[in-house]
Amino acid sequence: MAERKGLDAFEGCALPAALETMGERWSFMILRACFSGIVYFEDFQCALGIARNILSNRLGKLVTRGILTREPVANDKRRVAYGLTEKGKALMPVMIALRQWGERWEPVQPARRILADSRDRQPVREVRLQAADGRLLDYQDLCWIEAPAAADDEPDCTAAPLRAMGAAR
Amino acid sequence: MAERKGLDAFEGCALPAALETMGERWSFMILRACFSGIVYFEDFQCALGIARNILSNRLGKLVTRGILTREPVANDKRRVAYGLTEKGKALMPVMIALRQWGERWEPVQPARRILADSRDRQPVREVRLQAADGRLLDYQDLCWIEAPAAADDEPDCTAAPLRAMGAAR
Repeated sequence: MAERKGLDAFEGCALPAALETMGERWSFMILRACFSGIVYFEDFQCALGIARNILSNRLGKLVTRGILTREPVANDKRRVAYGLTEKGKALMPVMIALRQWGERWEPVQPARRILADSRDRQPVREVRLQAADGRLLDYQDLCWIEAPAAADDEPDCTAAPLRAMGAAR
Repeated sequence: MAERKGLDAFEGCALPAALETMGERWSFMILRACFSGIVYFEDFQCALGIARNILSNRLGKLVTRGILTREPVANDKRRVAYGLTEKGKALMPVMIALRQWGERWEPVQPARRILADSRDRQPVREVRLQAADGRLLDYQDLCWIEAPAAADDEPDCTAAPLRAMGAAR
């Protein structure tokens, strides 16, 4: 039963796949550096204080995973510049949500740089979960529902409260 | 200059602190299991397929970091149940944003379980960055602004486009 519960919990969940790419500290730190405009190996190394071999490994992994591009510099073919792909840029909400969580829950200094809307220079909103109609949702407002295709084999789990998902089996 | 750029990029950023706790694959996988209602060590092990010593280490770390509670079970003092603290529940938007990113960008099966609003059972919205007035913001709409306290020592960086942050120095 516990095993079944485990299968239920993760089958068809994209989180493990996402974590294959982003499930380690340096991936997000490198992403954060990219978001700050860092493009060269040496600058990543200075910004992150990371060993060259580890940085090289992580950058290569992010290029392989389609998060970063690696292009020779126009006026100096021996140098390469790293840049974010659309897939990489799409991680912005994840990174900002994690940063905001850290600001709220970890003992840190106030941020010197704040992410803002370039149109009005106002800080972006706190990243929150929202209902289809836009209402803000907290943990207790959420439930798991079966995807339509799988609904028929587990009708009893439809709209089970989060806390009860395991016990419900 | 590269070093200064690095300092600029990370000074006062809460991301490193957040990654101290959540910057590794198992932390999010354990969190995902908690969100599915798993509370017992054996069930985490079944759900995650993780070695007992590693699971024990990660659970202990999450308890120490204030993400999980560890309480003896009322009717069986030898067992303990793990549960999410408010700090842990506050990671929901991060986890869902990462999962949605995986669904969009990684080759995965459609999810069997979808997170929904318990009031109307409609799936939650895609997690997006929003302006103060609620407009959805994409990568190109964003800029870093100096926090008021630090604005005076780097006026030239105010509202610098993301891509130009590094080059702007």
